[in-house]
Amino acid sequence: MTQIPVLTLLTDFGLEDTYVGVMKGVIAQINPQVRVIDLTHQIPAQNVALARFALMMACPYFPNGTVHLAVVDPGVGSQRRPIALAFGAPGQPTGFLVGPDNGLFSGVMSQSPVTMAVELTNSLYWLTPQPSATFHGRDIFAPVAAHLARGVALTDLGTPIAVDSLGQLALPPVEQTLLATGALQGTGVIQAIDHFGNLITTIPASFVAGNTWAVRVGQRMVAGQTTYTDCPAGEPLALIGSHGWVEIAINRGNARQQLGVSLGELIQVIVPAPKTTLHGKPD
Amino acid sequence: MTQIPVLTLLTDFGLEDTYVGVMKGVIAQINPQVRVIDLTHQIPAQNVALARFALMMACPYFPNGTVHLAVVDPGVGSQRRPIALAFGAPGQPTGFLVGPDNGLFSGVMSQSPVTMAVELTNSLYWLTPQPSATFHGRDIFAPVAAHLARGVALTDLGTPIAVDSLGQLALPPVEQTLLATGALQGTGVIQAIDHFGNLITTIPASFVAGNTWAVRVGQRMVAGQTTYTDCPAGEPLALIGSHGWVEIAINRGNARQQLGVSLGELIQVIVPAPKTTLHGKPD
Amino acid sequence: MTQIPVLTLLTDFGLEDTYVGVMKGVIAQINPQVRVIDLTHQIPAQNVALARFALMMACPYFPNGTVHLAVVDPGVGSQRRPIALAFGAPGQPTGFLVGPDNGLFSGVMSQSPVTMAVELTNSLYWLTPQPSATFHGRDIFAPVAAHLARGVALTDLGTPIAVDSLGQLALPPVEQTLLATGALQGTGVIQAIDHFGNLITTIPASFVAGNTWAVRVGQRMVAGQTTYTDCPAGEPLALIGSHGWVEIAINRGNARQQLGVSLGELIQVIVPAPKTTLHGKPD
Repeated sequence: MTQIPVLTLLTDFGLEDTYVGVMKGVIAQINPQVRVIDLTHQIPAQNVALARFALMMACPYFPNGTVHLAVVDPGVGSQRRPIALAFGAPGQPTGFLVGPDNGLFSGVMSQSPVTMAVELTNSLYWLTPQPSATFHGRDIFAPVAAHLARGVALTDLGTPIAVDSLGQLALPPVEQTLLATGALQGTGVIQAIDHFGNLITTIPASFVAGNTWAVRVGQRMVAGQTTYTDCPAGEPLALIGSHGWVEIAINRGNARQQLGVSLGELIQVIVPAPKTTLHGKPD
Repeated sequence: MTQIPVLTLLTDFGLEDTYVGVMKGVIAQINPQVRVIDLTHQIPAQNVALARFALMMACPYFPNGTVHLAVVDPGVGSQRRPIALAFGAPGQPTGFLVGPDNGLFSGVMSQSPVTMAVELTNSLYWLTPQPSATFHGRDIFAPVAAHLARGVALTDLGTPIAVDSLGQLALPPVEQTLLATGALQGTGVIQAIDHFGNLITTIPASFVAGNTWAVRVGQRMVAGQTTYTDCPAGEPLALIGSHGWVEIAINRGNARQQLGVSLGELIQVIVPAPKTTLHGKPD
Repeated sequence: MTQIPVLTLLTDFGLEDTYVGVMKGVIAQINPQVRVIDLTHQIPAQNVALARFALMMACPYFPNGTVHLAVVDPGVGSQRRPIALAFGAPGQPTGFLVGPDNGLFSGVMSQSPVTMAVELTNSLYWLTPQPSATFHGRDIFAPVAAHLARGVALTDLGTPIAVDSLGQLALPPVEQTLLATGALQGTGVIQAIDHFGNLITTIPASFVAGNTWAVRVGQRMVAGQTTYTDCPAGEPLALIGSHGWVEIAINRGNARQQLGVSLGELIQVIVPAPKTTLHGKPD
């Protein structure tokens, strides 16, 4: 735990309304010392899959003991469980997650083991014992996260639940195919598109490491490069993004707009046959 | 007053420019300790009515003694007064408001009494004795709010003014009608539309409490429910929103877009005749 | 240096992704005490010129010793230098700038002398000795800025470089012409357009001070005024903006939309012949 506790917020609330500000007011009442950092509030409404990706990307960059509060919650008021969990090493957790049990946390969980999870049943740590049916972010999750960041134990917040009962939202695994040319083809999907229009795939850096390689996106082949400026302005390129996945971008342009690609679309990464392979031949 | 003072910001400045950042720089120079929380900066340009609503919704969730700085100010540079006021209990104010006297604060004032108000006439607490004609947020309001949050008294900031002279911006009151069927009808308006497209009316929760009820919006009747998921995805429903007013939403959808409803539009809430009424009859 | 150090952020990363949040996480790990203030993250993608303007406008309003981290970096991963510099008085710098050497800082430099500049070559102060090719904001600039704000000396961060070698991005100077009517005409450009649609020119306040004056924008003449409300609602006016430049606005309207003007467009400011001039004549 750092001396100044950190609490991050990720929601689909947008910034037009005061929903986020109100959560920060509730947090300031309970825990005036905590440092609140916004991850983003512009997850497309109710898009749990993109929220899962964003949280998985951001958590590794925060101090040990950070509490991550995430609310993208199409099922608010229904039967989905409100939860909190610790991930990382048992004695000194890397961090905590607070929010609805709808798969939002399954990206972080794929990178770091969960050491304990609880269903939030103890209303002593809520804003009110009768929370609204529509804004658990304010009434349950923000107060619980603020208490967690001031050192309240997970077991005080609710009832322990089995880690393997937690909601999962998995992406399709990368499929590998050995082509007739001897090249290896990995088929993945566009799992996120960022503000710059860069297309982030599910193909990990390890798939292409140390090889010349290319990506097929739609009808187009795009060569793997090292940086955005390794091709002429306006031209598409593939590279390893800062998140560690294969990414398709356009030098000084917007790949989403110019290539017309959407979330979830299939892409293929092709790694040529190793030069040392006996049967390798040019295609 | 909390140990760590809190200062909130609400403007129509948007986040593209550095106007908000500059106000925070001015505040940091005067009061490095204060914790600044953004309510929103995306009030539609010069829309005092929506700013009034947003501020009224957010203030109750902040620690006692919080200073709320709000600048939606179409009359900047003209004769409207720059003001600061305290609301809540006289000895220990719930909070302070700083901004232009144009009705922006009349929502908070409808919920909590004003104990003192001053016109900001003491330029010793401004950024400069000659403020620009166009950015009082930077030159007057931000410095005054920063000083207020470090304990400067209202009476040092300017000249006391009568509470009943403060700008008002009232919404039309809810009209009640007893229908021939014995049902009670309340007519209100859409007073706000949030980021999710949910339509927030002026009908309070107390109007429908404990009854089955419905809302007429345009040509459509929508049944009152408890949570967003109490109807099939894509279907409209009415419910009591987290702010305590009747709200019209679409389960996993956007009511503004799908119902084609605008701010200020009339809606009717119908509460059936009490079952115990002798003359009650099904309609 | 203030007791609570301040670090500002300006990028073109937008707020949809977690790029900004991740930078704040990296900063919180290195320097938990620093106060982080967002200038803006909505600079249009890769628009170094607008970033230069925004930074120049905002820096004067921050406490002495503030570290300004700015990342609008179309050349990330290429040969442009990562730099840090101090500006203001040698002994007690007004502030520090950290980011790519692409002209981003040339606006601040036009207002305040640079006292020392270094190329960031010491990877001990980076997040990792092998930074990604695409996100120097996270891997180099954020950690360096966080260390600078906790007192690390510029000379520890890298190799001193000549101030006159720093990237420049200058705007065309204002051209002055004496018209046949005896009036003085200054020709400048629209250097920025703000959230309200106000058009900010390169003509300084000093050009028009104390005179009646007018602006020609497209085919239209617009009279110089003092405040936004000095003309009827919906009408265009010119005034001295809060930043000290001639600005064209529409009272309760949006000048960009209503006048159809774009960034970089030429405008003329006309100051009539001084009344005391012998040859002055009405036109």
